Order: sequence, then C-alpha cells, then structure tokens
Amino acid sequence: MENNAAHYADRLEAAIQAKGAPICAGIDPRPEWIPQSFYDDAFKQHGQTPLGVRAAVRGFCLEVLEIVAPHVPAVKPQAAFFEALGSGGWDDYFAICAKARELGLLVIADVKRGDIGSTAEAYAHALFGEREIKGVKLESAHVDCATINPYLGGDSVVPFIERARTHGAGIYVLARTSNKGSAEFQQLELKQDGALVDEVARKIDAWGSESVGECGYSDVGAVVGATHVEAAQHLRKLMPRTPFLVPGWGAQGGHAAAVRACFDADGKGAIVNSSRGVMHAYASGPLKDFGEEHWKEAVEQAVKTFHAEISQLASEPAAP
Amino acid sequence: MENNAAHYADRLEAAIQAKGAPICAGIDPRPEWIPQSFYDDAFKQHGQTPLGVRAAVRGFCLEVLEIVAPHVPAVKPQAAFFEALGSGGWDDYFAICAKARELGLLVIADVKRGDIGSTAEAYAHALFGEREIKGVKLESAHVDCATINPYLGGDSVVPFIERARTHGAGIYVLARTSNKGSAEFQQLELKQDGALVDEVARKIDAWGSESVGECGYSDVGAVVGATHVEAAQHLRKLMPRTPFLVPGWGAQGGHAAAVRACFDADGKGAIVNSSRGVMHAYASGPLKDFGEEHWKEAVEQAVKTFHAEISQLASEPAAP
Repeated sequence: MENNAAHYADRLEAAIQAKGAPICAGIDPRPEWIPQSFYDDAFKQHGQTPLGVRAAVRGFCLEVLEIVAPHVPAVKPQAAFFEALGSGGWDDYFAICAKARELGLLVIADVKRGDIGSTAEAYAHALFGEREIKGVKLESAHVDCATINPYLGGDSVVPFIERARTHGAGIYVLARTSNKGSAEFQQLELKQDGALVDEVARKIDAWGSESVGECGYSDVGAVVGATHVEAAQHLRKLMPRTPFLVPGWGAQGGHAAAVRACFDADGKGAIVNSSRGVMHAYASGPLKDFGEEHWKEAVEQAVKTFHAEISQLASEPAAP
Repeated sequence: MENNAAHYADRLEAAIQAKGAPICAGIDPRPEWIPQSFYDDAFKQHGQTPLGVRAAVRGFCLEVLEIVAPHVPAVKPQAAFFEALGSGGWDDYFAICAKARELGLLVIADVKRGDIGSTAEAYAHALFGEREIKGVKLESAHVDCATINPYLGGDSVVPFIERARTHGAGIYVLARTSNKGSAEFQQLELKQDGALVDEVARKIDAWGSESVGECGYSDVGAVVGATHVEAAQHLRKLMPRTPFLVPGWGAQGGHAAAVRACFDADGKGAIVNSSRGVMHAYASGPLKDFGEEHWKEAVEQAVKTFHAEISQLASEPAAP
C-alpha cells in the first residue's frame, strides 16, 4: 500500500466487481482439520516439532489462498489461530497476508484490537504501512483493513482510523457481533433512545463521515453479524454510508434475510464472510463426503457455492 | 504453570506480601526512548536491520526486568509495542514473559483480546498452558493473567476464564478504562439502573463468584482506571470480591484518591500499574535529569518511589 492510495471502500468495490460477488474467505486454520499430508511433508522437513506444525498450517493456508483467489475479492485471516501456534505464529500471519496481497486479494485483518492513545498507535503500526526506527524500516502486515473493538471509546478508535486512512486502508468497528451472547451488552437499552449498539453505530457513522469514497461508502465500516435480521435492518438505516463486514454465514447459522438486510437497495455496501465453511469444507459441513484426499475440490466447490449464494442474495430486491 | 496450580488471587496476594507493595511495572517499550547504547550493541551483532532493532528493544526490556524484579510482584508487558516491531515481535513478547517468570514475577499479559467461541479459545491457547497437536507440544506465553475486552458478551469471556482457571491463572476484564474517552460508551446510562460499566461489573462479579481464593478475591478481575475517583468508589462496591488492575498512575495523571478507592478497607484487592513512568524514567517525567547514561539508576529510583507511594496509599484509611 502506498501513501494516499485509493480509498478503501472504492478499492473494495472494484475488487467485488472484478470477482462478481461481495464475499470474503476467512482464514481460520484449525490444526485438527488440516489434511494429514501437510503434517507428513512438514515433519519430513522440520521434524515433529512446533516449527513442523507451523509449517503444516502455513502450507495449508497458502494452498487455500491459491484455490479461493479466483473467486473472492478479499480474505480475512483470523489472528487468534496464528497466535495459538506459539511465539512464531505472528510470522505465519505476516506470510499469509503477504501471499494474499501477491494474489491480488484485499486483506482484512481480523484482530479485534482496541487500546488507548499511543498503544492503539502501536497496534496500528503492526497493521498498516511501515515506520522507521534508527534508520531501519519496520514492516507491518500491510493489510487493507482491520477489525477494531470500540469499548474503550472514540479516542481508542481514532488512531486506527488515522493510520489506516493514510495508507488507503480502512477499519471495521465491532457493532453487533454474530455470537449468541452478543446481545448481553450490545443490545442493552439506553436511557436515551435505543441500545448501546445504536450509539456505537452513530459514532461509526460520524467517524466515517470525513472520508467517503466515490462509491458512496466510507473507510470506517461496521461488523454486523448475519444472525440477527432486525438488528441488520435497523443498523443499515442508522449507518447508510458505512460498509458492513458480515460474519456468521455458514457454520454460525447466518440467515439469508439478515444478510440481505446488510446490503443497500442496490445490493452494495457489505461483504459477507465464510471461514470454516470454505477452508475446512472437507472436514465439517455438507461437503464432508469429498474426503481428505479431495480437500482441494471441496474448498473449490464450497467457495463457488458461497459465491453463487451471496451474489444471488445481493441481487434480490430488498425487503420493504 | 501447572494444572490445578494455586488460585491466581492467592498467588498475587502472596507476591504482593513478599515485595511489600501492590504494584506492577508495565513493559511498554517505545523504541524512541531506549538508550542508544542498546542500538549500538544490537546493530554490531545484527546489523542496522529489523532484527537489530528488535534485539535492542528486547535487550532493554530484559535489563528493566532485572532492575524492577526486587521491587514489584508483577509486570505487565503490553502486546501492542511488541506487535509494532513487525512479524518477529511476538517472539520477543514470549521471551520477555519467560524472563519475568524466571525472575519470580507474575506476568499480566496486557493484550485486551476478545472474540467469540472457538476463536476466544484460540487466543486463550496463546496465553495459558500448552496444547498438543499431532504429538507436538505447542507452548503458550504461560502468563498468569491477561486483560480481556467484554464488548462481545459473556460467551466471549468465558473461554478465557475457563482456560486461565485450569492453569491457576486469571483475567482482568475491562470495566472503566483510564483514557479520556472511556466514558463515551462505558458510562452510557441504561434504561435499567446505572451505566453500561455497572452491568459489565455485575457480570464480572458473577463470573468470578465460582472461584474465590482463600484471600477472598476471585480469579476474574476488572480493569479500573486510576483517573476517575467516583467511578472507582462505585465499582469497588459493585464488585467486592473482584481484584482490580489499576492503570493510569504517573504519566496518565492518575489521582491518589481514585487509587485508594480501588483498594478495600484493608488496603487489599488491587494492583496499580505504572509503565513509562518506571521503564522510561530517564526519557520522560521527573527523573529526566538522570540522563541517558544513568538510565538504570533512573529506573531504580522510579520503581522505589512508585513502591513507596502506593504502599503508603494502600495503608491509608479508606475514604468514608
């Protein structure tokens, strides 16, 4: 990413047009669901060691990226599954991000970071652009977008927005997440009108108002789960120019109506993610019959089905 | 940490007794405030390269740990400043945690993680204990405690509690943070009685109720900033058995009255953190006159002053 690169929302829209569907493949590698052949090869080279496990996970993710690249505009590597590999896991995260960029994919870092002031700046340094210390360039993961947690308040979110924006990147702020317990705090009713998530939504809309791309959407997005129809309809109205990242399709039981409600009337303004339903298609879900030796075909079939389902959904008329 | 190790709150209380003050040294390395001698040595060995910068930062942090170890029961390495070093920064984070454990210090991982279900489990795998994949043991950072963000709801917090508890570790959930913007969402008034932070506090109290140590405190703590007196008094009452982690002393302008309110009547139940005020004492703040060549003396003076101030504060009578 160069300084003053094109606006994030415009780059995303162009990538969606090029690939024909507003979808994102989540890269959430679960070691127990990776074909044995990757471990066999990696252990031959690195021994039955932590480095061997990491090489197997990395190798699998790199092949998944190759398979999905023709079909998706973006991928969303989940930091947790790389951190769980131990001290070297963050190296693998960087490698996956680099490979995705090489393949022309937008990279959405699912990191859900959030901290105050100069600490938020440090997290942002890890994600966007590069910086110089004592004449040495330190590289970030150079991602196009990252997920951010708003609980600490606006002064914890703004450092991410500012650093992302300088590099033509964006952020998605957690609004209504896709998990069952998401209502516990997010839907608490406020003394003023509405729920906590509504106040978060109003702030997201305001933060993004300073930078709206040619496509009509801003570089400050919102995470809105595919699991709550009414919440999606309501939040779409509260944040008319906010791009949505929509998790929860597939394994988490997302609903078509909730996903449709995340798009605007023209079927724009959202990108839908599927993680294990695509990358681990052979190991769980409806494509299990492919079996481990045909895991690649399972991933390809899964991403094509996902592409067809969501492009169809986005093109349907919006609910009244 | 072994399975079924002693309760986190009891281990913390014992460590506080041994060192004589409920204080924690934050390890937040800012590359621009590290003495030049560390860069000179590291560049000699690794060249003027990213690895050289990382070696300088790591070397500085390791020496800081040696200086503060006799005076503090715990340290709190801030993940953001290690992630900001690039892909290898997480290796350095593990190294700092390992060295702190060797020195007999409790380690509070300031990571502010939060995610749903199996993703939260993956983050917890990176922090507590070890796990086995294909016969290979993958190590975590083996920390004693970690900071967690509650925005996603209870089902995002519980996986951290469960994994920590199995290893005699604990968590601190963000309640009221120390930044200026913390009120923006945390103090929103609810239709039901109180503010968002009160509801978070009630949940923290409930999550911890299942595991209270002999000292009377649980293994589910709360982050309560040293910058809001009334909030601290109120939250102490709402969470009588919850250990507090209190950031904001020193550079962030924490108030003595707010810190005192975080302790119970006996001066127990909280640990106060200072980050740049200790480790970067020579570079900013009242001990700047020590100068770069006397940076060690500045750190030692700063940690001793911090020790005296907080042990005095904790021993004072509580406000009525």
